[in-house]
Amino acid sequence: MSAETPTAVANAGPLAVVCGGGSLPVEVARAAQRQGRRVVLLALRGSADPHFVAAFPHHWVGLGQFGHACRHARAESCRDIVMIGSLVRPHVRDLRLDFFTLRVLPRVIRAFQSGDDHLLSSIAKMFEEQGFRVLGAHEVAPEILMPHGALGSRQPSEIDRRDIQRGFALLRATGPFDVGQAVIVSDNRVLAIEAADGTDLMLERLAELRGQGRVQARQGGGVLVKAPKPMQDRRIDLPSVGPRTVEGVARAGLAGIAVAAGSAIVAEPGRIAAVADRAHVFVVGVAADGPPS
Amino acid sequence: MSAETPTAVANAGPLAVVCGGGSLPVEVARAAQRQGRRVVLLALRGSADPHFVAAFPHHWVGLGQFGHACRHARAESCRDIVMIGSLVRPHVRDLRLDFFTLRVLPRVIRAFQSGDDHLLSSIAKMFEEQGFRVLGAHEVAPEILMPHGALGSRQPSEIDRRDIQRGFALLRATGPFDVGQAVIVSDNRVLAIEAADGTDLMLERLAELRGQGRVQARQGGGVLVKAPKPMQDRRIDLPSVGPRTVEGVARAGLAGIAVAAGSAIVAEPGRIAAVADRAHVFVVGVAADGPPS
Repeated sequence: MSAETPTAVANAGPLAVVCGGGSLPVEVARAAQRQGRRVVLLALRGSADPHFVAAFPHHWVGLGQFGHACRHARAESCRDIVMIGSLVRPHVRDLRLDFFTLRVLPRVIRAFQSGDDHLLSSIAKMFEEQGFRVLGAHEVAPEILMPHGALGSRQPSEIDRRDIQRGFALLRATGPFDVGQAVIVSDNRVLAIEAADGTDLMLERLAELRGQGRVQARQGGGVLVKAPKPMQDRRIDLPSVGPRTVEGVARAGLAGIAVAAGSAIVAEPGRIAAVADRAHVFVVGVAADGPPS
Repeated sequence: MSAETPTAVANAGPLAVVCGGGSLPVEVARAAQRQGRRVVLLALRGSADPHFVAAFPHHWVGLGQFGHACRHARAESCRDIVMIGSLVRPHVRDLRLDFFTLRVLPRVIRAFQSGDDHLLSSIAKMFEEQGFRVLGAHEVAPEILMPHGALGSRQPSEIDRRDIQRGFALLRATGPFDVGQAVIVSDNRVLAIEAADGTDLMLERLAELRGQGRVQARQGGGVLVKAPKPMQDRRIDLPSVGPRTVEGVARAGLAGIAVAAGSAIVAEPGRIAAVADRAHVFVVGVAADGPPS
């Protein structure tokens, strides 16, 4: 991302934010407003938070209603689209497909059956074919990117730093398989690799396994490492970390979280720092392309 | 493994089988007896099945009692040792260390903190330093290796075969990190990667996530793929499949199991075939070094 990108997009007219769950969509919308852009939310039914959504001009759309989304964006004169927020992958029977989506159904089904990456990039491509420009949330709101260094007051130890490098190396190896963006490494041992479960569930599971004595690892050791997949479209699927991630890491008895600096999204950095300090865990942004351990 | 190995080891005197849980230790012990070897079990307290153990000359040893194990093996004139069976990684406070183990404690602790591979190969190395020869279970009992082709009557579909090749390719990529020997791939999408949890728990978890609608994948599609890590010492840690694995795969709604033929251990192939046919899943041995998909 070049430094002048935000200015470049600031003059580009109103922005449509396709918004899923969590607080990130609002932060992105506010950042765009601060840059003087008019923002319209396309709020995903079942995912977006109605309370946040109400604070902006918005339209509710279902996940299977790609045609409606395009129509609203056009009616609001938005050429640029950002997709941001968490998304529960719905069951096909819960999709209420609109006419346009029915026409492209085979593609939607193929996208659903592949990795998350493929699902999101298919949707981005469909928007582009409809004449829209798909921007990354961090292009509109660079302030949401993870900075270098610690968010709270704790720092990783030497052992933690080695675990972090091992985690980044493993993520580089699994990246081509469109699998998760997170691993847990403790004392050089890989405890978990994220796949269809997602980061929060992976942490829950580790806490459970530890409670049952089924995983032996040093209490207060081990790092959750997150980085984007090497081949991933960064406009639509950067890994993210929020206060809930920090709480999950603490419950799993780990030492902290390391995130690829500048390549991951941080929701509410202030709250993250507070939660991390209270839980005695670190949260650091680290250059992910360091030498493998 | 060369074809003459079994004959070569048959004339090598009595065999000590360090035996963990499950039915494999007994199958290996019986196979060695069929070859005319005297077999002595070094049964691991808390892991080995007392009922099976009683059928052979045996000594019970604790996991931290490496010195006792060596003493028993020597007293029984065993030069060869096989380590086989499942092992619950105990909590350090539950280890009742003998004097010898205390002396090598720093090494034991280092081994514990690394991957499973490292733990087992450290123990193998300690046996070798004590003058023993560590053999692979499959060298003593080649009949326990997974053959090429299906164990039951069901065969993988074309889609399953592509998932299998993707699984093997992913396992080749994660292998250098001493992480699990199993992955689950469904319609080209990676649903899970085994790490500290183990195969059975990974399957349980997938069944749960599916039940909660948190993972969307075609019911009756998807394959559990197992292969040894590329750098692994095959004498001590080949992946294994048993009737319980088949039941777990059926509960997780998958199509079947693919195992690296000749590089994985099958407990009770007859029962596996019966359970697989009843559950409508396939269990196949496949050349793992085929071209990646």
